[in-house]
Amino acid sequence: MEALQFFVVSSFSAALAIAIAAFGCGIGQGMGLKAAVEGIARNPESSGKVTVTMLIGLAMIESLCIYALVIALILIYAHPQAAAIAGLLG
Amino acid sequence: MEALQFFVVSSFSAALAIAIAAFGCGIGQGMGLKAAVEGIARNPESSGKVTVTMLIGLAMIESLCIYALVIALILIYAHPQAAAIAGLLG
Amino acid sequence: MEALQFFVVSSFSAALAIAIAAFGCGIGQGMGLKAAVEGIARNPESSGKVTVTMLIGLAMIESLCIYALVIALILIYAHPQAAAIAGLLG
Amino acid sequence: MEALQFFVVSSFSAALAIAIAAFGCGIGQGMGLKAAVEGIARNPESSGKVTVTMLIGLAMIESLCIYALVIALILIYAHPQAAAIAGLLG
Amino acid sequence: MEALQFFVVSSFSAALAIAIAAFGCGIGQGMGLKAAVEGIARNPESSGKVTVTMLIGLAMIESLCIYALVIALILIYAHPQAAAIAGLLG
Amino acid sequence: MEALQFFVVSSFSAALAIAIAAFGCGIGQGMGLKAAVEGIARNPESSGKVTVTMLIGLAMIESLCIYALVIALILIYAHPQAAAIAGLLG
Amino acid sequence: MEALQFFVVSSFSAALAIAIAAFGCGIGQGMGLKAAVEGIARNPESSGKVTVTMLIGLAMIESLCIYALVIALILIYAHPQAAAIAGLLG
Amino acid sequence: MEALQFFVVSSFSAALAIAIAAFGCGIGQGMGLKAAVEGIARNPESSGKVTVTMLIGLAMIESLCIYALVIALILIYAHPQAAAIAGLLG
Amino acid sequence: MEALQFFVVSSFSAALAIAIAAFGCGIGQGMGLKAAVEGIARNPESSGKVTVTMLIGLAMIESLCIYALVIALILIYAHPQAAAIAGLLG
Amino acid sequence: MEALQFFVVSSFSAALAIAIAAFGCGIGQGMGLKAAVEGIARNPESSGKVTVTMLIGLAMIESLCIYALVIALILIYAHPQAAAIAGLLG
Amino acid sequence: MEALQFFVVSSFSAALAIAIAAFGCGIGQGMGLKAAVEGIARNPESSGKVTVTMLIGLAMIESLCIYALVIALILIYAHPQAAAIAGLLG
Amino acid sequence: MEALQFFVVSSFSAALAIAIAAFGCGIGQGMGLKAAVEGIARNPESSGKVTVTMLIGLAMIESLCIYALVIALILIYAHPQAAAIAGLLG
Amino acid sequence: MEALQFFVVSSFSAALAIAIAAFGCGIGQGMGLKAAVEGIARNPESSGKVTVTMLIGLAMIESLCIYALVIALILIYAHPQAAAIAGLLG
Amino acid sequence: MEALQFFVVSSFSAALAIAIAAFGCGIGQGMGLKAAVEGIARNPESSGKVTVTMLIGLAMIESLCIYALVIALILIYAHPQAAAIAGLLG
Repeated sequence: MEALQFFVVSSFSAALAIAIAAFGCGIGQGMGLKAAVEGIARNPESSGKVTVTMLIGLAMIESLCIYALVIALILIYAHPQAAAIAGLLG
Repeated sequence: MEALQFFVVSSFSAALAIAIAAFGCGIGQGMGLKAAVEGIARNPESSGKVTVTMLIGLAMIESLCIYALVIALILIYAHPQAAAIAGLLG
Repeated sequence: MEALQFFVVSSFSAALAIAIAAFGCGIGQGMGLKAAVEGIARNPESSGKVTVTMLIGLAMIESLCIYALVIALILIYAHPQAAAIAGLLG
Repeated sequence: MEALQFFVVSSFSAALAIAIAAFGCGIGQGMGLKAAVEGIARNPESSGKVTVTMLIGLAMIESLCIYALVIALILIYAHPQAAAIAGLLG
Repeated sequence: MEALQFFVVSSFSAALAIAIAAFGCGIGQGMGLKAAVEGIARNPESSGKVTVTMLIGLAMIESLCIYALVIALILIYAHPQAAAIAGLLG
Repeated sequence: MEALQFFVVSSFSAALAIAIAAFGCGIGQGMGLKAAVEGIARNPESSGKVTVTMLIGLAMIESLCIYALVIALILIYAHPQAAAIAGLLG
Repeated sequence: MEALQFFVVSSFSAALAIAIAAFGCGIGQGMGLKAAVEGIARNPESSGKVTVTMLIGLAMIESLCIYALVIALILIYAHPQAAAIAGLLG
Repeated sequence: MEALQFFVVSSFSAALAIAIAAFGCGIGQGMGLKAAVEGIARNPESSGKVTVTMLIGLAMIESLCIYALVIALILIYAHPQAAAIAGLLG
Repeated sequence: MEALQFFVVSSFSAALAIAIAAFGCGIGQGMGLKAAVEGIARNPESSGKVTVTMLIGLAMIESLCIYALVIALILIYAHPQAAAIAGLLG
Repeated sequence: MEALQFFVVSSFSAALAIAIAAFGCGIGQGMGLKAAVEGIARNPESSGKVTVTMLIGLAMIESLCIYALVIALILIYAHPQAAAIAGLLG
Repeated sequence: MEALQFFVVSSFSAALAIAIAAFGCGIGQGMGLKAAVEGIARNPESSGKVTVTMLIGLAMIESLCIYALVIALILIYAHPQAAAIAGLLG
Repeated sequence: MEALQFFVVSSFSAALAIAIAAFGCGIGQGMGLKAAVEGIARNPESSGKVTVTMLIGLAMIESLCIYALVIALILIYAHPQAAAIAGLLG
Repeated sequence: MEALQFFVVSSFSAALAIAIAAFGCGIGQGMGLKAAVEGIARNPESSGKVTVTMLIGLAMIESLCIYALVIALILIYAHPQAAAIAGLLG
Repeated sequence: MEALQFFVVSSFSAALAIAIAAFGCGIGQGMGLKAAVEGIARNPESSGKVTVTMLIGLAMIESLCIYALVIALILIYAHPQAAAIAGLLG
């Protein structure tokens, strides 16, 4: 049944999307976190400002990963043709 | 049914596009964030200007990822031939 | 039986998702941890603030990996078409 | 139907083009942003000139990504043979 | 027999998941360990705080690898469809 | 129809050409931009000369990407055999 | 005989799992060891504390590799379906 | 028709040639540009000599990319067998 | 004969396992050795402690490679199903 | 027609040869150019000697790329069997 | 004849094993050698101790490569099933 | 005709050989050139000796690439079986 | 004839083995040589000791490559089954 | 004709062997050359000793590449089975 192949590839794509995005954003957030922690250790008085800036930046990077999460969830739960294709299943 | 293959590959392409773009932009934003946080920790008085510049830069990088998100959403929801091909499904 | 292939690929996707995400986030957390530990060794008095910031950052990175874990668990336990496809098995 | 394959590969190419370009340009812009933010933190008075130069540079890099976006959109919406091939569909 | 292929791919996925995750987390923990050891050698009096922070961080990274281990064990011992598919074997 | 395959591969080639070129040139321009911005921040009085040199260099790198864009557009709009092959379509 | 393929892929997976994990953990332990040895050479009096910390860290990394070893041994000696599949052999 | 395959692969080769060459030369020119800009910022009086040397070097690197462009254009417009093969088309 | 394929893949897996593990552990031990030798050259009096620590570390890394060697030897000499499969050979 | 395949692969090989060679030599020349420009900026009086040495080096690297160009042109225009194989075409 | 394939893959595996192991261990030994030579040049009086430590380390790394050599020789000369399989040859 | 395939693969091999060798040697020569140019800029009086040494080194690296060129030319013009195989062509 | 395939793969394996080993050991020896030459330039009086140590190290690395050469020569000239398989040729 | 395939793969292997070896040894020699040239520029009086040591090292690396060249020439001109296989050609 070819219709099944749609769900097979959707699952794989969803997994790939979130995995690759998490890989890159994980490294990106690690770079930001590294600098923030180094900075606070050197200059503890800047702690407030550094933490705020770090959180803004981490949130920006998090958003990139969430785009991929959204695409992954759309592929699993809400693809516009999914209902039609599921109808072909049985 | 070949028509199904169109939706299969569209799903995979959408996932790939957002994943790779998020990977690269995540690292790019991480580099910017790292420098901003280091800078604020060294020189907390520059915090305002640094944050503004960082936000401009992060927004520029975010835009690259949003281009990919737009292409991904077009492939899922708004491909010009999607309606015609969906008609071939059943 | 094609229906079986769905579970085969789901298993593989789940494994791939968590593996790649853990790879990237593991390196990202390692970068954060490295900076935190260096900082505390240089300036032990900043230990409290550094640890708090590090934990916030590690939690942000952990969340990326947990997104992938969630997708992996959905693919194994809760894919919306899984019941229908399992019905095709026997 | 072979005609369908044209739209399948166009979609994949469009996604690949924007994804790879966004990856590279994201890292490139991150390098520029990093230097700009470091510079402003070290020498806040240069902030005006640095921001202007950074914006020129980011715009040049953005243009590279927009070339890829244009090619991607051409492949989806405006390929010169698309109409003829769509006519082969049904 | 296709049912066998399910166990074949599950085994391979489990091995891949733990291998890739161990690779990345091993490098991540190595980075943390490196910094901790350098720090203690430079400033032996900070040894207590550094070790505690290092252990927190290593545990966070370990958790990423354990997610992959859990997925691997689920694929081998507790996949929800495993019983049904094993019934197809003989 | 084999004639269709020509347009399929042309589209893919055009996308690949601009994507890979944009990747490399994006990183190259990022390196130039990084140095320019650092230089201006350190020595704001050199701003004029630095910006001019940077623009010359960015233009040289941009030209490399435009070669690829030209090839991509030739492949889509102006391949010498395209008309003959399009005649084979219907 | 398909049943044989199960043991073929299990063997390959076991080898791959331990190989990739040993690769990554070997590099990770190398990083920890490098720092420990450098530290002792610079400050021989810290030798006791450094060695203890290094051993804790190496053990954590070793544990990652042992997870992979366990999965590899399960795949060779103790896969839950192995007996049933071996029964299919002859 | 096999004759068509010649034009298909020529197109792909032309795109690949210019893309990979642009990638490498873009990074190479970026390295040269980076050093030139840094140099002028540090020592604005050397601006004339630096710009001249940079232009010589960029031109040498540009020439490498132009070799690839020439090969790409030969493959599209002037391959010695192209006429004979085009004759096989219809 | 499929039974032969089991020994073919076992041989390949054994070779791959020891090769990849030796690659990674070789680099890891190289990093440890490098630091030890640098340390002794800088501070020859620390030679005893450094050598002992280095040997502990090298032994830990060696153990990772020996896990892979053990798996390789099991695959060649002691796979639990090997006897049964060898019986299928002739 | 197999004879056609010869020209197809020759074209692809020629493109690949010049592309990969241009990639590597472009980076190599970039490294030389970078050092020359840095040197002149630091010590403008050495400009003559530096430029001469740089030109000798760039020419040596250029020669490597020209070897590849020569092979590429031989493959397109002057392969010793090309005439015989072209005779097989029609 | 399938029996031949066993010797074909054994040869390939043996070559791969020693090649990859030599690659990694060659780089690892290079790192150790580099540090030893640098150390002796800086502090020629430490030459004896440094050389001894270097030789211990190089021997440890050499052992990793020798494990791979042993596996390679077993695959060529002493695989337990080789005699049985050679009997299938003619 | 299989005989043709010999010339097809020879062409591809020749192109690959010179391309990969030029890539690596181009980077190697770039490293040598970079150091020579830096050295002359720092110490113009050493220019004679540096240039001589650089030329010896570049010639050694050039020789590696010429080995590959020789193999490439042998494959195109002077393979010992080429005449016999060409005789099979027509 | 399958027997021929044995010699085909042996040739390929031999070439691969020596190529990959030479790659890695070439870089490893380059690292050792680099340090030796730097050391002698800084401290010419240590020249004797440094050269001896370098030669010991280079010989160790050379030995790794010679292992691969030996395996390659065994595969070409002295594989234990080669005579038997050659007998199958004609 | 299968016999032809032997010469096809031999040619490809010879090209691959020399190409990969030249790549790695080119970079290795580049590292040695770089250090030698830097050293002479810093300390021109050490020129004699440095050049001698560099030549010994470059010769060692050259030997690695020559091993690969020898294997490549054996595969083209002197493979022990070549005569027998050539006899199968016509």
